[in-house]
Amino acid sequence: MTLKNDLYLRALRGETLERPPVWMMRQAGRYLPEFMALRKKYGFFTRCQTPELAAEITMQPLKRFPLDAAILFSDILVVPQAMGIDFKMKESVGPWLEIPIRTEKQIEEIRLPEVEISLDYVFRAIEITMEKLEKRVPLIGFAGSPWTIFCYCVEGKGSKTFDIAKSFCFGNPNLAKRLLQKITDTTINYLKAKVKSGVSAVQLFDSWGGLLSPEDYHEFSWPYIDQILEQLSPLTHTVVFGKGCWFALEKMAESKATALGIDWTINPELARTLTKNRKVLQGNFDPARLHSPPKVITKMVDEMIRRFGKDKYIVNLGHGILPNTPLKNATTFIEAVVNWRI
Amino acid sequence: MTLKNDLYLRALRGETLERPPVWMMRQAGRYLPEFMALRKKYGFFTRCQTPELAAEITMQPLKRFPLDAAILFSDILVVPQAMGIDFKMKESVGPWLEIPIRTEKQIEEIRLPEVEISLDYVFRAIEITMEKLEKRVPLIGFAGSPWTIFCYCVEGKGSKTFDIAKSFCFGNPNLAKRLLQKITDTTINYLKAKVKSGVSAVQLFDSWGGLLSPEDYHEFSWPYIDQILEQLSPLTHTVVFGKGCWFALEKMAESKATALGIDWTINPELARTLTKNRKVLQGNFDPARLHSPPKVITKMVDEMIRRFGKDKYIVNLGHGILPNTPLKNATTFIEAVVNWRI
Repeated sequence: MTLKNDLYLRALRGETLERPPVWMMRQAGRYLPEFMALRKKYGFFTRCQTPELAAEITMQPLKRFPLDAAILFSDILVVPQAMGIDFKMKESVGPWLEIPIRTEKQIEEIRLPEVEISLDYVFRAIEITMEKLEKRVPLIGFAGSPWTIFCYCVEGKGSKTFDIAKSFCFGNPNLAKRLLQKITDTTINYLKAKVKSGVSAVQLFDSWGGLLSPEDYHEFSWPYIDQILEQLSPLTHTVVFGKGCWFALEKMAESKATALGIDWTINPELARTLTKNRKVLQGNFDPARLHSPPKVITKMVDEMIRRFGKDKYIVNLGHGILPNTPLKNATTFIEAVVNWRI
Repeated sequence: MTLKNDLYLRALRGETLERPPVWMMRQAGRYLPEFMALRKKYGFFTRCQTPELAAEITMQPLKRFPLDAAILFSDILVVPQAMGIDFKMKESVGPWLEIPIRTEKQIEEIRLPEVEISLDYVFRAIEITMEKLEKRVPLIGFAGSPWTIFCYCVEGKGSKTFDIAKSFCFGNPNLAKRLLQKITDTTINYLKAKVKSGVSAVQLFDSWGGLLSPEDYHEFSWPYIDQILEQLSPLTHTVVFGKGCWFALEKMAESKATALGIDWTINPELARTLTKNRKVLQGNFDPARLHSPPKVITKMVDEMIRRFGKDKYIVNLGHGILPNTPLKNATTFIEAVVNWRI
């Protein structure tokens, strides 16, 4: 497969480039009026579970901006849904599980799904998106980290601190690990099937890893991510984005991950030092900084690229783009990268 | 004033001790049945604003546990309230501001209050508490950091990410700084009056500093904390607790703060290295870890003290104790410190 723009893949391979590639986490999202139009018509999981819609949403930002990668529109909670854990999207609450997972019996009863069947809609969305992309840029697939999925399953909803999930974990570590392992096994099968369907890389979102101490992270989050990396890295490029997980970067740099995503609380120099310059890094513009005046954004992007270095680097935000981001400022951010020269 | 137990103050002075002192953030809080009983009868700000109630609540954990310090029951939002910013506590929402501060006119109109008058109830609560304490242990006073107060004022309520507050700040940095300065000036007056009323130390809570990049932290949070330290450190011991602010520890270690509070995402050795062992450190047990079996808690506390070292160290949690913490486990935590020996 020859891509018209393979900058993202060349960055992942560590090649010497004119400029780094750029994409934005949640680039197909609520800051786009065309996304909001679809959002009025279809519920959240309908958008995820209807391949034509997921593909259309995936393409929306690509039509507007000169992005170097597409990422399949989906949600990390489709994995527990496939495991029979019945997440809903509740108005003004977010993800919602009527009966959170908190007993041995519930964990025991969870069966590993045939992902090819129960997540069939994702693989069909990939195929449709690949056609629409016409080899313009690579397509990224993603999944939540087992710890992050665990947090939602036990808490039953979003949370600032996921205290219930953490408390459950610390009070019942062995039981917690059985659930974590089931999520891990499902995620491995899911991501393998995504690769088979045509994605060029997979990214793991450990959105809640940063709520753990370094010791607990290495007990309850990292070993499961590492299992996924062991299985997936021989098949495709793997990217681990751990929000707030600066303390695990040294360990992550020893893994089979191709690239590591970081947030804006860690500066480029320290991230390079901690990863011993072994890994491609991705990040780390504070999404709220897209509210700066455009001139400031351009200057900050320029400085960010200089500090990370143009190679082994993928420009991105340090978390998902915010719903109220001015389109003009998103354009400024992307163009600052596209027009960047030494 | 001779205290019966001055371990906390001796730790702040860097003296050689048999064991470190211990107290817990939010030790007068929702995990205590006696607190919950009062909570049923009185609204949140009534509890803060009635000196007898605030003093009684402050004393509750002292009656139950062998703690080495008391901290005055209050709230960081009493400062903006004194500035005429009308925070309410809304059922199942938390802090709530009907009209968030988002315009130049609003910021312009804020007048610096006479804290001795508008926060009189706090100083009377300190006096009553001092009597009740009978010189048993020192009393700590506290305030929010200007950045953290700013976040609530602009966002108008609690938030995971305070995107609105941050976006306002990045879009209108000069206006934001005018509000930050007004909060700072008020906080300095407030803390000076607290010291005059008898507290032995003041702690600043920068609960949302960790949402900023290191550069933005040093522009929007640290300079205001530093102003407070410059004014207060000649008068009393000062402690800065910056949740998620590991990246600022080096800078903080150069300040006039007596001690630095840290959360559990940074390990003791790194905290000591970053602060060049110049400062007393306070923390950093993950409150959710109080759901571990008691044996595990005792072992973890022992290890934590060994890693921080028994001197220049105050044992605490890395954030407030959680509402659903078993009393038995809180007892285990405190006793593990009290009984600790080399």
